[in-house]
Order: sequence, then C-alpha cells, then structure tokens
Amino acid sequence: MHHILIQKSKANILIIKMIHIILLISLLITTTSNASVQDFCVADIKASDTPAGYPCKAATTVTSDDFAYSGLIEAGNTTNIINAAVTPAFVAQFPALNGLGLSAARLDLGPAGVIPLHTHPGASELLIVKQGHITAGFVSSANTVYIKTLKKGEIMVFPQGLLHFQATAGKRDAVAFAIFSSASPGLQILDFALFASNFSTPLITKTTFLDPVLVKKLKSVLGGSG
Amino acid sequence: MHHILIQKSKANILIIKMIHIILLISLLITTTSNASVQDFCVADIKASDTPAGYPCKAATTVTSDDFAYSGLIEAGNTTNIINAAVTPAFVAQFPALNGLGLSAARLDLGPAGVIPLHTHPGASELLIVKQGHITAGFVSSANTVYIKTLKKGEIMVFPQGLLHFQATAGKRDAVAFAIFSSASPGLQILDFALFASNFSTPLITKTTFLDPVLVKKLKSVLGGSG
Amino acid sequence: MHHILIQKSKANILIIKMIHIILLISLLITTTSNASVQDFCVADIKASDTPAGYPCKAATTVTSDDFAYSGLIEAGNTTNIINAAVTPAFVAQFPALNGLGLSAARLDLGPAGVIPLHTHPGASELLIVKQGHITAGFVSSANTVYIKTLKKGEIMVFPQGLLHFQATAGKRDAVAFAIFSSASPGLQILDFALFASNFSTPLITKTTFLDPVLVKKLKSVLGGSG
Amino acid sequence: MHHILIQKSKANILIIKMIHIILLISLLITTTSNASVQDFCVADIKASDTPAGYPCKAATTVTSDDFAYSGLIEAGNTTNIINAAVTPAFVAQFPALNGLGLSAARLDLGPAGVIPLHTHPGASELLIVKQGHITAGFVSSANTVYIKTLKKGEIMVFPQGLLHFQATAGKRDAVAFAIFSSASPGLQILDFALFASNFSTPLITKTTFLDPVLVKKLKSVLGGSG
Amino acid sequence: MHHILIQKSKANILIIKMIHIILLISLLITTTSNASVQDFCVADIKASDTPAGYPCKAATTVTSDDFAYSGLIEAGNTTNIINAAVTPAFVAQFPALNGLGLSAARLDLGPAGVIPLHTHPGASELLIVKQGHITAGFVSSANTVYIKTLKKGEIMVFPQGLLHFQATAGKRDAVAFAIFSSASPGLQILDFALFASNFSTPLITKTTFLDPVLVKKLKSVLGGSG
Amino acid sequence: MHHILIQKSKANILIIKMIHIILLISLLITTTSNASVQDFCVADIKASDTPAGYPCKAATTVTSDDFAYSGLIEAGNTTNIINAAVTPAFVAQFPALNGLGLSAARLDLGPAGVIPLHTHPGASELLIVKQGHITAGFVSSANTVYIKTLKKGEIMVFPQGLLHFQATAGKRDAVAFAIFSSASPGLQILDFALFASNFSTPLITKTTFLDPVLVKKLKSVLGGSG
Repeated sequence: MHHILIQKSKANILIIKMIHIILLISLLITTTSNASVQDFCVADIKASDTPAGYPCKAATTVTSDDFAYSGLIEAGNTTNIINAAVTPAFVAQFPALNGLGLSAARLDLGPAGVIPLHTHPGASELLIVKQGHITAGFVSSANTVYIKTLKKGEIMVFPQGLLHFQATAGKRDAVAFAIFSSASPGLQILDFALFASNFSTPLITKTTFLDPVLVKKLKSVLGGSG
Repeated sequence: MHHILIQKSKANILIIKMIHIILLISLLITTTSNASVQDFCVADIKASDTPAGYPCKAATTVTSDDFAYSGLIEAGNTTNIINAAVTPAFVAQFPALNGLGLSAARLDLGPAGVIPLHTHPGASELLIVKQGHITAGFVSSANTVYIKTLKKGEIMVFPQGLLHFQATAGKRDAVAFAIFSSASPGLQILDFALFASNFSTPLITKTTFLDPVLVKKLKSVLGGSG
Repeated sequence: MHHILIQKSKANILIIKMIHIILLISLLITTTSNASVQDFCVADIKASDTPAGYPCKAATTVTSDDFAYSGLIEAGNTTNIINAAVTPAFVAQFPALNGLGLSAARLDLGPAGVIPLHTHPGASELLIVKQGHITAGFVSSANTVYIKTLKKGEIMVFPQGLLHFQATAGKRDAVAFAIFSSASPGLQILDFALFASNFSTPLITKTTFLDPVLVKKLKSVLGGSG
Repeated sequence: MHHILIQKSKANILIIKMIHIILLISLLITTTSNASVQDFCVADIKASDTPAGYPCKAATTVTSDDFAYSGLIEAGNTTNIINAAVTPAFVAQFPALNGLGLSAARLDLGPAGVIPLHTHPGASELLIVKQGHITAGFVSSANTVYIKTLKKGEIMVFPQGLLHFQATAGKRDAVAFAIFSSASPGLQILDFALFASNFSTPLITKTTFLDPVLVKKLKSVLGGSG
Repeated sequence: MHHILIQKSKANILIIKMIHIILLISLLITTTSNASVQDFCVADIKASDTPAGYPCKAATTVTSDDFAYSGLIEAGNTTNIINAAVTPAFVAQFPALNGLGLSAARLDLGPAGVIPLHTHPGASELLIVKQGHITAGFVSSANTVYIKTLKKGEIMVFPQGLLHFQATAGKRDAVAFAIFSSASPGLQILDFALFASNFSTPLITKTTFLDPVLVKKLKSVLGGSG
Repeated sequence: MHHILIQKSKANILIIKMIHIILLISLLITTTSNASVQDFCVADIKASDTPAGYPCKAATTVTSDDFAYSGLIEAGNTTNIINAAVTPAFVAQFPALNGLGLSAARLDLGPAGVIPLHTHPGASELLIVKQGHITAGFVSSANTVYIKTLKKGEIMVFPQGLLHFQATAGKRDAVAFAIFSSASPGLQILDFALFASNFSTPLITKTTFLDPVLVKKLKSVLGGSG
C-alpha cells in the first residue's frame, strides 16, 4: 500500500478505491454491529440475572471505564476477629466480567490473619501472593490435605468446590490476589454457613457431630439464630 | 412402501432397488462407524482419566449389559454411627455414564439416620424420596438455610457445591435416590474432611474456630491424625 | 474458640472482637449478595426464556418451597391406549431446576404399558426402576439395539438424542423415575411427531417409506392432519 | 395398529382408546409446552442480549420462515479496494441461529480479491469453496503458517481466534461459504482494527513496530483517526 | 521501525537489539510451545476417543494438508432406492475438526431424491443449498412441522436432535452442504434404526404402533433381522 | 458429640460406634476413590493432549507440591527490543491447572516497555497491576478502541480473542499479573505471526496492505523468512 502510495501515477485510481473502501467499512460496521456486541457483554446488573449471566448493557453506552476496576487498590479492613478481609471483584462489583469466565478478589491478612475454611461452589481459584507469606491448603474428596506455605510471587491452585483456607505465615501482613474461573464464583464460608445463619442447633449437631454447647457459643459470637 | 409392495407389477423394479439399498446401508455404516462411537463413550476405567472423562472402551466390545447397573438394588449397611449408607453409581462404578453428564446414588437411612453435611464439588443434586420421610436442607452463599421435610415421591434440588444434608424424619427407615448433574460429582463430607484426614488440629482450630479439645476427640472417633 | 471462651481473662478482648466480626459479616453479606444469587437461579417462567434458561426470580422471594416439588407423588393416569403415563418435572413444572443441568419425570406403566419410541433432543436419560419389571432399550447411530429387562432398583442409561423406549415386562404395573442431564431435555415421541402433527402424508411416506394407508389410519387415531 | 384396525370386532374398544389417546396427547402437549420451546430459541433481537444469546421470541409466533434465510443468495459487491465482500448470516441477521452454536457467511472474491487477515474471537471456521480457486491460510500461536490452495468442493478449517485470510487464486472469481462454530463468531479485521479505528498512531507504532508514516497513510485510506 | 531503519546513525543500536529480540523469540517459542498445541488438536484417530474428542497428533507432524479435506468434491452415488447420498466430513474423515466444534457433509439428491427422516443426536445442522431446489423440514417436540422449499443459496437451520428430512423439489438434481455444530454430530436414520437393525418386530410394533406385516416387509428390504 | 464424650456412662456404646464408623470411612473411601480423582486432574504432560486437556497423573503420585508454582517469582529479562517479558504459568508449566479453567502469566515492563499487540485465542484476560503504571487497551470487532492507564492495584479485563496490548506508562518499571479463563489460553503476537514466521512477503502485503519493503525489514529484524 505504502509502495503504491509513492507511485504517483496510480493516485487517481487510489482515490476511487478509497471511496469504495470507506463505503465498505461503513457497510461492514453496520451489518456486523450486533455481532460485535458479543465481543463482550457488560452486565446490566439492574436487570434479572440468568444462568449464564446478566443481560448486556447497550454497547453504545460502554466506555473504556467499564473495563477497568479500582476497587482492589485499597486494603480491606483487617481489624476484626479473623484479622483478614476479602474484597471481591465479581460481576456484581465489576460488571464487565459478565460472561467472560473469570473474576478476582483481594485478600488482606494481618498478623495471625486467616480466611476461614470456605468453598467457591462455582469456580476453581488461583492464589497469587503479592506480599508476605501465606499458608494455604485444601482438602480433597478423598480427605487428603494439600498444604503449602507460599512466599511473594508464588501461586497455588484450589480445585472447584473443595474446602480451603489461607492464613498468614509469620508475623507480618500478607496480601494476595485470588482469581476465579467464573465471573460469579460464589463464596460459602463454613463458619458463617453454620454459625451466622438460622441453621438450627439440633440440626447442626445432628449433621456435624459438633457439641451443641459449642454450636450455641459460636452462634452467639457469629450472629446465628436457632 | 407397503403400498408399492402390493402392486405386483412393480416387483422387478423393487428387487433392483433392494440391491441398491443394501449396498447403501453397508456404505453408510462403514463411513459413519467412527462417528457412531460418539453416541456414547463407555469408560475404559483402567486408562488414565482426563478432565472430560475416561477414554472410551472399543465400541465393538460394548453390549447391552454395559448400559445397565444393579449395584443400587440392595440396601447399604446402616449399622454404623450415622445409621445411614450412601451407595454410589458414579462413572467409577457404572462406566457407561462416562461423558453423559449424570449419575446416581442410593441413600439408605435407618431410624435417626443422617447423611452428614457435605458438598458435591462438581454437580447439582436432585433427591427423590422412595420410602419414608426425609428432612433435607442446604445453606446458600448468603447463609440462608433452605429446609424441607419430604415424603415418598417428593423431590428436592440442591444447587452445585453448597453444603447440604439428609436425615430421617420420623422413626421409620427411609430410602432415596440422589441424582447428579455429572458422571463424577465428587463427595466431600465435612466431618471426614476435618476429622478423618491428616488436617492438623492447630490449622483446623485456626480456620474453623472450633475448640481444639473437641477437634481431637472427633479425630479420635473418625480416624483423623494431626 | 470454645477454648478461648472458658478463659475468662480474655473476655473483654472477645467482646470487642465480637463487634468486629458482626460488622465483618454484615459487610461480607452486603458485598457478596449479588454473587450469592448465582448459587441458584429459580426460573421466572413468565419471563422470556434464553438459550441458557430463564431469568432468575428475585432471590429475596425464594423460599424452601421453591426447591421441592410434589408433582411426582401421584401416579399418572394410565387408562389410555399406551397404558402408560409420563409426568414431567422439567423446569417448566419445577422452576428451581433452571440452570442446574438436571430434571426428572415419573413413568407409570400399566400391564402391557409402553412409552413409545422417543428421543430427548437435549439430554441423556437415566432410568431408575421403582416397582415392577421394565424392558427398555435404545438404538445407536450404528443401528445396534441395546435392550435390557430391569427389575426394581436397577438403573439404565440412554445416551443423548437416541431413539429409546420403555415397556412393562410381565403382567404387573411398573413405576420408574427418569432423570435427565438438562433442566429442559425435550421429548419427541416418534408416533406423535409423525401421526399427531400436520406432517403431510405424502411427505411422511416419502421420508419414511411407510405405507400411506397406514399413515392415514394412524393419523386418524392420533389426531394428525394432512 | 394397522393390524388392529382391520379387525372390525375390536372397533368399539378402539373408539374408546382413541378418546383416551387424544386426551393423552392434549395433556402431554400442555404439560411439555414450555419444554418444547427449548428445542429452539429464535432470537428476539430487540431485547437485550445475554452471554448465552438473546431471549427467545414467543414460540407461538415462530413459523417455518424463521428457520430459513435468503440473504446469502446474492453475491456481495466486490467493487472495492479488496475486490471482495463478506455477507454474514450470524444471529443478528438470522435470529433462528440463537443458541444453536453455528452460523455462516458468504464470501465473494473478484479477480485479485482478498479477505484481509482477520480473526473470529468466538468461533472456529470451516471454509467450503463453491466456485473458483482460493488460497487460504492461518498462523498458529507457534508462528507456523498453514496455507493451502483449494478448488471447488474442497474444505479447510481455521481454529478459533487465529489470524487467517482468504484470497482468489488464479484470475477468475471465487465464491465460498464460511461456517462458524458459534451463532455470533465476531469478526476482527486486522487492518480495520488498526487503521479504520481511532487507535492513535503513536500507540500503533509502539505496539506493532510499524512505521508511523505508513500508519498515517493507511489511516487516511481506511478512515481511521488519531 | 521502518522510520528507525532509515536513520543510519541508529544502526549499531539496532544490531544489538536484533540479537536480543531473536533470543526473546526463541525463548517465547520454547516456553509456549506446549500451549500452542492447544490452538488445534488434530485427531490421532487410532487412539481411543474420549468424551471431548480424540487425543491430539503430535504438533510437529501436523502440516497444511491436515487442515484441508477433498472428500466432498465428488458427488456421492445416488443410484439407490433413495436417489440420494450423504458424504460426511466428520472428525473420523477429517481429523483436524477434532475439538473445534463443527463438521460438514455433502448431500447429493437425484430427481425424487430424499434423505429420509433422521436426527443428529449431538448437533444442530445448517443446510446450504448449492444447486437445485430442496424441500426440507423438521418436527419440534410440540409436534409442529416446519417446512420450507429452498433454492440455490438459501440456508435453513435444524435444531439439535429433532427429526428432519431433505428431498429434491422439482425434477432436477440438487446438491447441498450440511454443516454441524459438533465434530462428531452422529446420524440416526429412522428407517435404518427400525428396519436395518436387529430391533425385533414385536418390540417395534409395540413401541411404534406400526403394522407387523409392514415392519417385516421393510426389514426384508432394508436388511434388518428379528 | 463432645457433649456425649463427657458423659462417661455412654462410653461403652461409643466404643462400639467407633468401630462402626471406622469401617464406614474405610468403605466410603474405597468406593469413592475413583470419583475423588475428579476433584482435580494434574496433567501428565508427557501423554498426548486432548481437546479438554491432558490425561491425569495418577492421584496417588500427586502431592502438595503439584498445586503450587514458583516460576512467577523472578522477573523476566526485559533487556530486549520490547523492554518487556512475559513469563507464563499455563498448563505446560504448571500441570495442576489442567482442566481447571484458569492460568496466569507475569508481565515485566521496563521503562518504555511494551507487550506488543496480541490475542489469546482461547481465553479472556484479567490484568492486575502489581507495580508502576501501565497503559493497556484492546480493539473490539466494531473497531472501537478501549484504553486505560492503570495504577498499582487496578485491574482491567480484555475479552477473549481481541487484539490488545500493555505498555509502561511513565518512566518507571511496571509489573503485572495476567490471568486467563483457560489453562491453555494461547498467545498470538501480531508481529511474530507476521514477521517472525515463514508467512511470505507477497501474501502479507496482499492480506494486510503493508508496504513490502517494511515487511522485509521487519522480517530481517524479527527472524521471519519468505
């Protein structure tokens, strides 16, 4: 093309072709404009969700700002009983993830911090240690425990739906990013499911063999009823 | 065709066509024989598994017997601490399920029987009560508990990856079938993950807030170490 | 935790922590409340369906009752020409199945009952015999027929999209549950597709080689036109 | 059935059965009517798209005409700088494709025609040469180039997301059909992405090593800005 | 880059950079070489199939020839009772389709030709008429028949798993390409499933209501037994 | 359970129950041991890949070390023409990712560093800025450019298969993690596809409109032939 451009004698032909190509582009953009929406589907989170994700925002209203998210810049508040905080960037917080099959969260762990045993019902997780040392592990269906202490830059994977945890190793703060293989991985924290819910104490003791006195104590701490 | 057959004058043409069609069938069966394997893929469970399931047994060795399974006829032995038994018909037991996206299990519940809190990391579950009454429930990510007491013929669904349980309601035995949306749903029983594994007591107490004395007692009962 | 509780001297610290954790729970529940919807997506079946299922009912309106279904308790009416009845519990009847990848149906078979040859375009099927004896089978793409006579408690699998049938074996009633690997498996009954539709007799005879006199007779019985 | 029909003595029984079966059909059609929608989901393209496709048009408004499309009959206009035209039959043009996992396009190539280097972000492509000769190729992630010159009736496959092109081989017009493994495969033409967009010249030169003078010239031809 | 090249004074720097970049490329090609295999997975069809397709041929043995297929150039032999022929290009014939989610077949229809009623258990189909006129149709789960007569260049879609047919319209030969949303769509021809198999006549009549005399006649023509 | 334990009088019963439960666990572990393999499928990368990933390593040989990876700790060498390095942790480097639907890479960007325009044919990407400032962007199918300058802790998403880039913003080094929605996302760098391959100069100029002199110059720098 450049080669053609410096050959002046072909300029007239070029001008005619230019007109054609501009028409062509207009045409292609018009006819494929609906298809292009499928490149992405930024969630209209006010609309009803579906099993595959939210309906898409109109493509004409999507801007660069939709594709970036600043909510993980700041550390979460770790002044709590677990000395830890989870800050999610799931589709509910970052609508551009809708339909793209991945999401993230920031983990802040103070000294002695712990993300208690939990599962993600809808995704596998990849942990990236950004700062400090973290001991993390999961339990398989065969009741085997896989545990590692990770340092900055190390990564670890937790297969979908299995119980796992992360805890500060050493005395210093730790920070990590958790990445999920779904825009909406879900998060079921074992203690909250049992002791911050209205799961009745008799049913909990029946289905877990835990001591009812302990169950009631933990419920009183974590806010559960029943 | 029948219409043609009773018109005798067309018989000669028919015989010629017959020869053609038999040739055609031979041809079609030959050229599509590999594709037909894809109707099903009975697992060769001695081969290495893959993320999508086991390699297929050679189609020529597959018989009607491969597609039926008798392992759920007999009740499981409920003479144990949970007064209950789970008998799986997953791909490992019933190789014809390989790649077909569903499996089953039989639940036998004695009086006061309970299938303790558990998850299936890879599947949703549909429970069909065959006999007796069963109280079943699950806890959502939002820590809401959904519980129902079901009678014979009633069904209940447990979404993928969430903690759930089943227990005998009333004093009589109960039997149910559990159906899963995967040939290999997995099964993580909370108590076994914690107390029948080598998950160390300090890590359990740190990640669950359970009392270490209790953890050790349950480990001694359920066979865990650490 | 329990361990801590009995150490009185740590009580004050505990109270402070309690406040923190209650705040934490509030926070986590708030920030993950949209994600929690993704645990399940009970169908709003009045809304327009999508290729992945119906939009979800608002999570706040979902109760335990949504997750159980009683429509399979009662036997279907088998006083008909096939001495059989199929009672579905697909997403249309049981909206909680939406997006969960499985569904069920109850089959009632009188003496000499038969579920005529049919396919499920969108799912594989697992049959569980609950009562009586059933002869069931399917035909593969390679035109091989796989047939078994099953007794109570036996299960059989029918790969997706293939022609199959179930029929009473012996003289007594039979009951079975059919389970599907989709919340909306579809059901195409061969005889109804041909003879209860407006599929014209000339086209049927042309595309099946069946006798036009027979086609017309069956149409008159099954209610087809053309 | 036919056998029964000619046995006059069974006629009365038959009439009774007829009534039953007609009732049965009504019942089945009623109870499965929602499920039947799932056979197909003709797009309501005025509604908001979702990650899995558009909401479905009401099944009652769907006719045979929805399932056929005439937009690929006519040749596209190849009087343009690339001497070629792409006419899509994606879900936006042919709404019946919604959720069915495939789509098509017609390629018209004049003498010296070329479909410039492009990708389909969401689908693999199968090319079927209908007329003339076409040289086509793709580049793999390992930077290997796979090129073939195809004649009428030959087919070639281009794996998902890889750069590929088609060009007239020889001096005569060529026509082909491109088939995609998605109802909405997307189409990113390299030259248009770079030179018909508002991608700034400094960023293009920085991220491609192309000469800024050339970039500006191509932008002026293809209508880009920046 | 070009801009840099004509500035002679920067040549020395360039040479140094060239060495670096060549090293970089070597490195990148090495470290991503396994990943690049995932661009495509040309089937090793001698190995055991899996539910997701065949194991891949070694990438180093793959050439341009693997991605093209000539088997659809020639018309199939239509000198048979259906005056028609189906020539498949499924993964078994064209191994490069493995894992790519699409395949093709050529349909040749003589005058009065017909592709009898059939289903594809594993794929939706898109028909492209290449020559002549074709009447095609399918029956939905709701027993609605959707039929169209198509001319050259028209396309029609048949949703997954539903009974459908194609037949010559008019007196002239017709040719079409059928495209599938799976590399291994399967093909179950109704007449062959019933009458070219060992499906016993009593079971066929029981499950289809067809007349046993007719069934036996068709079996004798199509080569079935039982 | 704990409640029971301190009631000494129930000790004998307990001992009996203990024996039962240990038997139960043994039984359950035995019968579900194959299923447990499906929790994860650590790749046996010496075996042939399949479209769904590699065959699994034997579960008995899997240890905690399999689930962690240290290859992203060290910065890549940015002393090259792009002042940047990409260090992948795809399934080929980190076999535990097999079948889990996600992977990662480390990006090191020196001052003026750039990851040139590229696509991932098989995955969407989420970028997490770990250090410094990065300008990143992608071009949609509609030829719209979405660009953002991100600071530490900000994230940005790039939909699957679209051209995108990352470049240092400002004068200081930058580091980021890129996360992918596939264990094997692929990586096609535009410049390498064109100029580091054996893609012939005439075909490149024909399919991109680039000047042949420039193409040859870039090929000489990047190591391409033809």
